[in-house]
Amino acid sequence: MPKLLVIGGVAAGMSGASKVKRLEPEWEVVVLEAGNDLSYGACGLPYWIGGVTAKENQLYAMTEEKLNNRGIEVRLRQRVTSIAEGRKQVTVLDEASGRSYEEDYDELLIATGAKARVPGIRGFEGKNAFVFHTFPEARSLNEYIERSGAKSAVIWGSGYVGLEMVENFAQRGMSVTLINRSTRVLKTLVEPLRDVILDELESKGIKVLLETNVLEILRDGDTITALRTDRGELKADLFLAAIGVDPATDFLAGSRVPLAENGAIVTDERCSTGVHGIWAAGDCCEVTHLVSGRPVYIPLGTTANKMGRVAGSNIAGEQARFPGVVGTAIVKVFELEAAVTGLTRSQAMDAGFRAEEVYIKAFSRAHYYPGGGRVHVSLTSDEGGRLLGGQVVGPEGTKGRIDTLAAAVTAGMNIQDFSMLDVSYAPSFAPVWDPLLIASGVLERKIFDR
Amino acid sequence: MPKLLVIGGVAAGMSGASKVKRLEPEWEVVVLEAGNDLSYGACGLPYWIGGVTAKENQLYAMTEEKLNNRGIEVRLRQRVTSIAEGRKQVTVLDEASGRSYEEDYDELLIATGAKARVPGIRGFEGKNAFVFHTFPEARSLNEYIERSGAKSAVIWGSGYVGLEMVENFAQRGMSVTLINRSTRVLKTLVEPLRDVILDELESKGIKVLLETNVLEILRDGDTITALRTDRGELKADLFLAAIGVDPATDFLAGSRVPLAENGAIVTDERCSTGVHGIWAAGDCCEVTHLVSGRPVYIPLGTTANKMGRVAGSNIAGEQARFPGVVGTAIVKVFELEAAVTGLTRSQAMDAGFRAEEVYIKAFSRAHYYPGGGRVHVSLTSDEGGRLLGGQVVGPEGTKGRIDTLAAAVTAGMNIQDFSMLDVSYAPSFAPVWDPLLIASGVLERKIFDR
Repeated sequence: MPKLLVIGGVAAGMSGASKVKRLEPEWEVVVLEAGNDLSYGACGLPYWIGGVTAKENQLYAMTEEKLNNRGIEVRLRQRVTSIAEGRKQVTVLDEASGRSYEEDYDELLIATGAKARVPGIRGFEGKNAFVFHTFPEARSLNEYIERSGAKSAVIWGSGYVGLEMVENFAQRGMSVTLINRSTRVLKTLVEPLRDVILDELESKGIKVLLETNVLEILRDGDTITALRTDRGELKADLFLAAIGVDPATDFLAGSRVPLAENGAIVTDERCSTGVHGIWAAGDCCEVTHLVSGRPVYIPLGTTANKMGRVAGSNIAGEQARFPGVVGTAIVKVFELEAAVTGLTRSQAMDAGFRAEEVYIKAFSRAHYYPGGGRVHVSLTSDEGGRLLGGQVVGPEGTKGRIDTLAAAVTAGMNIQDFSMLDVSYAPSFAPVWDPLLIASGVLERKIFDR
Repeated sequence: MPKLLVIGGVAAGMSGASKVKRLEPEWEVVVLEAGNDLSYGACGLPYWIGGVTAKENQLYAMTEEKLNNRGIEVRLRQRVTSIAEGRKQVTVLDEASGRSYEEDYDELLIATGAKARVPGIRGFEGKNAFVFHTFPEARSLNEYIERSGAKSAVIWGSGYVGLEMVENFAQRGMSVTLINRSTRVLKTLVEPLRDVILDELESKGIKVLLETNVLEILRDGDTITALRTDRGELKADLFLAAIGVDPATDFLAGSRVPLAENGAIVTDERCSTGVHGIWAAGDCCEVTHLVSGRPVYIPLGTTANKMGRVAGSNIAGEQARFPGVVGTAIVKVFELEAAVTGLTRSQAMDAGFRAEEVYIKAFSRAHYYPGGGRVHVSLTSDEGGRLLGGQVVGPEGTKGRIDTLAAAVTAGMNIQDFSMLDVSYAPSFAPVWDPLLIASGVLERKIFDR
């Protein structure tokens, strides 16, 4: 029977392993996981830190025991350090013993994920300096807060993880300062929507410093005491850098597995790397943006799970394809929800489109129905009216509105049809003209001059 | 300057009138409204009865004064009793004086809406017998409850309005019995989803009697005392029939305006009736179902507003089209939300498709994120995988999920692509595999046997 070796036991790896085992129960399926944790909901880590998710073990989707019962052999703390694609072997470091060994495969699925970027500036290290991507990193942070009773934090970076950590540190009663080099929070958002998020953060007592550069890390022994910035010294009990992630593919250096400039693995729609028997899925890969047609690096759990499943199907001999993404993402920021899909006008222009964009605000419910609030929508199309993307910030219904847009963008729908889309309506859920349709109507008039 | 005459001053009529006035400010625009109320949110009437919407005047979108300021001449209590399309005139009854007069037009927009069906059985009348569609009907009901202190109600009919009234009577502290001739509540829902709604109703103390026929209305003078049914006598303080609506088109009998069998006006995509200068929009019209391609009568406020706008654009000389609907609808039932779009398997088979359907349930959020609950999804496709429709019942996010499906169904997306749709994910909004994608994957395996 063939042997599938999977490198990485979280989202993409476990999806792929499970799919193969379901389709081909007789195959030998071995998962090598460098860490100590399997199959956990990494996107839940901020909420565990905030105490929203009460217990660490709630985050696991699957235990080692259950996996073994399914016939998937899982080995923890086994780090793959190189591959020899000609011999169909990988070299594995057993972290417990410190010894290395060779493991062979018929099919290899690389699902090593991503790793948090560490600031390049000297001195961002020590007992109160953190990055945040994996379970061990979250545990270190949590233990430090518990042990030290930290009451204040500086978060460096205002992407999705940075913003989720702002909320969850605040949830834990800490005072939070958010700093960012650029002019904005959530750089994917267009300006009027960013401003709404900024207002929300400040109304919750978060100190936000934009266009702020860290010049020096001030230290006392093993502890960072402050960041010296061009806006003054920022003291805090702990410092968290949330400045992005990179694909965890160092071990592929020198192999024939094709890598993009940032180190992300290049695959085709079948999740094949093009190297015989080698597949890849998840945060270690780049993917195709379905609107621009270009490769992008947008590591997300949904994509990882889909790619893992597609890779597994193909490994087992089926025909499955992962076409790509439209860049959909959502984040909760206190009482607000912010989401994006497709391209902004600026991104569309970069991708060679002649594009138009509108921004509107409208209520989330019928004006006479209590609750709800203001929904902010930005919508982009090309000059012929083809929908290219949109963004939504609001107090409710944001996931649904961005997903509706994602479906329309993926299908290549034009705004004339989108303005007439038969979306659902009842007073507690939307106004009779949904904010999406209002935006589409305004964009239609802008483009077609009516 | 040409003169537009609009019959009906609520959703479609006011949308059309406003559109024409915006595009052609010099036109004479006259709106004849048979009732005393203009431009109100009819969908909010149940919530005003329930006290959720506190004040009657919140329901108005626009006052007579504002409309007059916009140059739209509004005349209340003017009922059109017949049309003479050859002479381009209508006959109008002035309800105040009881006198009739002729009014001429260059363009005529018919937007008379629908009227509540009254049970055919003898004796459903009197001071505690109600139907419920217009503002005056809602006012009568409200006044009766206030005056009589009614503490119990029988609602006859379990469609959208019936269910909304159940909730709002309960909200007002009344004990409610819901009766229905058929085997189900919300006949548009497939069985497993109907059962979820039924459980919700019963858990809120609603007495639900299905397959119940009313045999006789028991009366005492001007008051109904009970309904005698094949399940016994049902006493209550008031009785509400919510058994559907019919198009309000009696005045067109004998005219050349084309009517469907149920009396609904037949229009083309431009909302033209085909009779020179006569347009129609809203609840008085049938529309095209975009999946079956067949005419359907699905009167809803969203459709009315869209058709009114399209009719207005075309009347003013632009080129606009209302392609049709996919039958999307949503209703809130206490803590649950129920929504449909497209066709069920049974409807699809009737429309000539070879169709498959699946039903799944899944959580509305990540399993480790508190709150949320179970989402029930049904999904239908044809044998080649083209999405034909879907249904969702759940505690949250239902509007968004059904709208996403509506977009996919409208675009003719197939389930292979839908299963890979880049929908948004964060733990507070969905599990990593959204219930929609789970259902799509199950349907894919059912159809393609994998």
